[in-house]
Amino acid sequence: MSGYVIRKEDYLRRLRLIEGQVRGLARMIDEDTYCIDVLTQLSSVTSALRSVGLGLLDEHLHHCVVDAASIEADRGDRTITEAVVAIERLLRA
Amino acid sequence: MSGYVIRKEDYLRRLRLIEGQVRGLARMIDEDTYCIDVLTQLSSVTSALRSVGLGLLDEHLHHCVVDAASIEADRGDRTITEAVVAIERLLRA
Amino acid sequence: MSGYVIRKEDYLRRLRLIEGQVRGLARMIDEDTYCIDVLTQLSSVTSALRSVGLGLLDEHLHHCVVDAASIEADRGDRTITEAVVAIERLLRA
Amino acid sequence: MSGYVIRKEDYLRRLRLIEGQVRGLARMIDEDTYCIDVLTQLSSVTSALRSVGLGLLDEHLHHCVVDAASIEADRGDRTITEAVVAIERLLRA
Repeated sequence: MSGYVIRKEDYLRRLRLIEGQVRGLARMIDEDTYCIDVLTQLSSVTSALRSVGLGLLDEHLHHCVVDAASIEADRGDRTITEAVVAIERLLRA
Repeated sequence: MSGYVIRKEDYLRRLRLIEGQVRGLARMIDEDTYCIDVLTQLSSVTSALRSVGLGLLDEHLHHCVVDAASIEADRGDRTITEAVVAIERLLRA
Repeated sequence: MSGYVIRKEDYLRRLRLIEGQVRGLARMIDEDTYCIDVLTQLSSVTSALRSVGLGLLDEHLHHCVVDAASIEADRGDRTITEAVVAIERLLRA
Repeated sequence: MSGYVIRKEDYLRRLRLIEGQVRGLARMIDEDTYCIDVLTQLSSVTSALRSVGLGLLDEHLHHCVVDAASIEADRGDRTITEAVVAIERLLRA
């Protein structure tokens, strides 16, 4: 089971908002909006995406990692290593 | 005129792809995909957005900033200060 | 006990290298090195610092979080929440 | 001439502070400080480095780029392309 299941509706709602924001970016470009204003909006979409990522990571650590560690130490360790790789990917994205 | 006008179609195409990727993220969550796989996909969307941001910034510096500076030094300076604030916002997003 | 204790010498060695790199940055500025070359070196110092941060986070999750969770579920949860706040701070830094 | 020359003393002072902060990080690790406290301090060093980077970039755009563009359009363009590559490197660091 995925760690975020209990807040699934919340994540789906936030992603719909982000999808609308991306469409808004396209509209701004289509209407020749001043570059800096497009960039400001783009930073806000990036920030919203990052928040979703941090939320998913939070649930993952609270549920999947703790569950894996409680079953078997080795399994917990593998799950943590995998999570750290995901955090690194977020940091460099 | 916005600096990205000549590549407008390219930006619109990239934003449509990103919009599709965000919808893909929602679908992954709706289907209870494993958290780490959702995070990997989310990093890739963030990275695609950042590339669009860097592209817009590049055009902005090549066109708007150079144009503003050629009209009047002060105006060039204000445009650069504004661009640096936008870069800072991208960095912290 | 801190999670990084067994690799303490390795971290101290990496931080000494980073300290030397920061001194190198000051020397570059003192010698009026071209801005872009200073920025390239600065990105490399930032990247080295981030790697140390990811290493510390990795040890923290593998040791402190797993230990806390094995003592008491609530304690594990608090430790994870604290770690996620630290990850967010790294992301925005 | 480098764009930051007039604020050279300010940059040297900030880099000395950062060097001291990196030494402080090593001291924290040497004294087995709690991982999360080390990470908080590390985020603050990273943030101080980024501010120096943004400052250098700001001076670079205000001086070197504008100078290059005033000499010859092509030269301005090359300098801007080089600056955007440096910004991308900062973003991914």
